[in-house]
Amino acid sequence: MVSSPIRILGLDPGLRRTGWGVIDCSGNRLTYVACGQVCPDETLSLGERLAKLHEGLTEILKAYAPDEAAVEETFVNQNPLSTLKLGQARGIAMLAPAQAGIMVAEYKPNLVKKTVVGTGHAGKEQIGMMIGVLLPKAGTIGADAADALAVAITHAHHRVSAALKKAVMA
Amino acid sequence: MVSSPIRILGLDPGLRRTGWGVIDCSGNRLTYVACGQVCPDETLSLGERLAKLHEGLTEILKAYAPDEAAVEETFVNQNPLSTLKLGQARGIAMLAPAQAGIMVAEYKPNLVKKTVVGTGHAGKEQIGMMIGVLLPKAGTIGADAADALAVAITHAHHRVSAALKKAVMA
Repeated sequence: MVSSPIRILGLDPGLRRTGWGVIDCSGNRLTYVACGQVCPDETLSLGERLAKLHEGLTEILKAYAPDEAAVEETFVNQNPLSTLKLGQARGIAMLAPAQAGIMVAEYKPNLVKKTVVGTGHAGKEQIGMMIGVLLPKAGTIGADAADALAVAITHAHHRVSAALKKAVMA
Repeated sequence: MVSSPIRILGLDPGLRRTGWGVIDCSGNRLTYVACGQVCPDETLSLGERLAKLHEGLTEILKAYAPDEAAVEETFVNQNPLSTLKLGQARGIAMLAPAQAGIMVAEYKPNLVKKTVVGTGHAGKEQIGMMIGVLLPKAGTIGADAADALAVAITHAHHRVSAALKKAVMA
């Protein structure tokens, strides 16, 4: 079976830094397209920072026109205020693709680590190293961009089985 | 000193229901304008629900053209997942006014209760009752709309002192 290539946008949301990564996926073959980070000016008000984040993500969606998007289901357990802040950034990361008419899949951090590194308890360095192996053209990138590419890779691996499950259950 | 009337939008964000309330404030005089709730269809995906919430708030901002907006600094302490969900809705509630070029003030729940009811430990019923006293034209409204009007009233009371504090510190 030859499937047409699918372009995937992975997102690692955060108010200070939101990592993003775009890959093309054709069957089992993954190709690096682009990655980066959106870092809204921290001196702005919360509303303005969220508006800048939204603007940045909307530009990326226009520039790379992904077919599907994926976000990690992270939350910070220890501090409710940090979790709330993360939630605010994550809301924008979910909103921007939805406004572009793109479905947004969510993956648990353990599944992302297991897919990319092979174990659910991998550290940030291991993810960064495996991104270098799986997508060598990405070169030297930040941890947030690497996490975003890891989510995109996870979606590439699990999107077909998720679609099948949905079709069977419908 | 006669100040020109200021229109304030209060928001009580939630993924299932976001309450909103608009008041006009002219010196000490508060006038009810409108209130309601945005309830995105719960059968939609998270991204789509956030997009519907954003659409609803953007329509309200266009229809009532508020000068300033205010949101409660709430977070759910017990459950990180609930806090994350609330944060996502709150991100949209902060984004929409910022995109319209409106400043968004944040108030702690205790300050909202103290301003509207007179004590920082008031219940939902007391807030609803006091909204009926302060803004009789609001009539019978939902708890989320009442909370949104309470935040708008809090902003009406504290906006001048906040502006003065900023001017002194600048």
